[in-house]
Amino acid sequence: MSNYPKPINRLIEALSYLPGIGPKTAERLAFHIVSMDETKVNHLITALQDSRDKVFECSTCNNLTDKDPCTICQDESRDSNLICVVQDARDVTAIEKVQDFQGKYHVLQGVISPMEGIGPDDLNLKALMDRIQGEGITELVVATDPTVEGEATAMYLNKLVKPLGVRVTRLAYGLPMGGDLEYADEMTLQQAFEGRKEL
Amino acid sequence: MSNYPKPINRLIEALSYLPGIGPKTAERLAFHIVSMDETKVNHLITALQDSRDKVFECSTCNNLTDKDPCTICQDESRDSNLICVVQDARDVTAIEKVQDFQGKYHVLQGVISPMEGIGPDDLNLKALMDRIQGEGITELVVATDPTVEGEATAMYLNKLVKPLGVRVTRLAYGLPMGGDLEYADEMTLQQAFEGRKEL
Repeated sequence: MSNYPKPINRLIEALSYLPGIGPKTAERLAFHIVSMDETKVNHLITALQDSRDKVFECSTCNNLTDKDPCTICQDESRDSNLICVVQDARDVTAIEKVQDFQGKYHVLQGVISPMEGIGPDDLNLKALMDRIQGEGITELVVATDPTVEGEATAMYLNKLVKPLGVRVTRLAYGLPMGGDLEYADEMTLQQAFEGRKEL
Repeated sequence: MSNYPKPINRLIEALSYLPGIGPKTAERLAFHIVSMDETKVNHLITALQDSRDKVFECSTCNNLTDKDPCTICQDESRDSNLICVVQDARDVTAIEKVQDFQGKYHVLQGVISPMEGIGPDDLNLKALMDRIQGEGITELVVATDPTVEGEATAMYLNKLVKPLGVRVTRLAYGLPMGGDLEYADEMTLQQAFEGRKEL
């Protein structure tokens, strides 16, 4: 690495901050950037500056946004009584792609994980409780990941919120569509049996 | 993609310019960048600006550099009569890592490739010819890639330069060290037989 001109070395180092980019890939990217069209490099620099300066968390739901409150929180055609609780901002987009959910969101920015030292106090729970008490929420759909941590968080939320008279639901478990039953893991298959529905 | 705040969409688009970064990876990187430590983002932006503004091609050998002539061309302990011809700047670093070659370099910035419409006129050949005539070069080591295009370029260089009384050599072909003979391809094995040496 020390053989490269200093600016290239620094670029390689900075690119290595990114997830999944090791030193070899960073090297390849850096050399591509150096020989890239200058307008494209400028575009990349401006995009980085803008995402540093203009993206922040919505003060209501904690989703990433460039205006406050975010477009979803501002959308009056949405059902304000229905809130979907997700782990992070990318989950909001995943659900929005389905174009089916008509409520609003709340981004926890994490899940309870004793292994990583993340407790309930580290999540955006206070803001959620304020919304529940202030906005007259009737149903909370807990859409945390189907993992041990996601489950624990869902349980915790249920305990916390149900006493307030709010319905707390969890996304269904079962076989993923288009999948192959033969390859489903035991946990999923068990959940699919438990959740079976009459036709 | 359209669900994200605009600055994030633009960042995803700009990151997709990079080789090997598809839309999904760009999305993941963009979200990582948005939640990244601000000093690291600043570091990345500065590194990009510097590599745009401070890296250019050495006026002698066309290697990438931040000073002109580059450190290798300036190094008086190196043999100026011996020039290694490579395809691009990364090859210089690969050879420098071996710490064995004591001559200087010339970066062609490509190889002759009729398929991609790259002819001899698109390479840095004129500068090379000027160096050969001006600097009293005695040997040209052609270190283009061992591909059809690299070969064609080596042949072309040989035809061009040999009449000037310069020795033109090519890196040896053979089995890669630490490799397994059983898995060597036929071309390589054939070259290894042809190039066999007395012990």
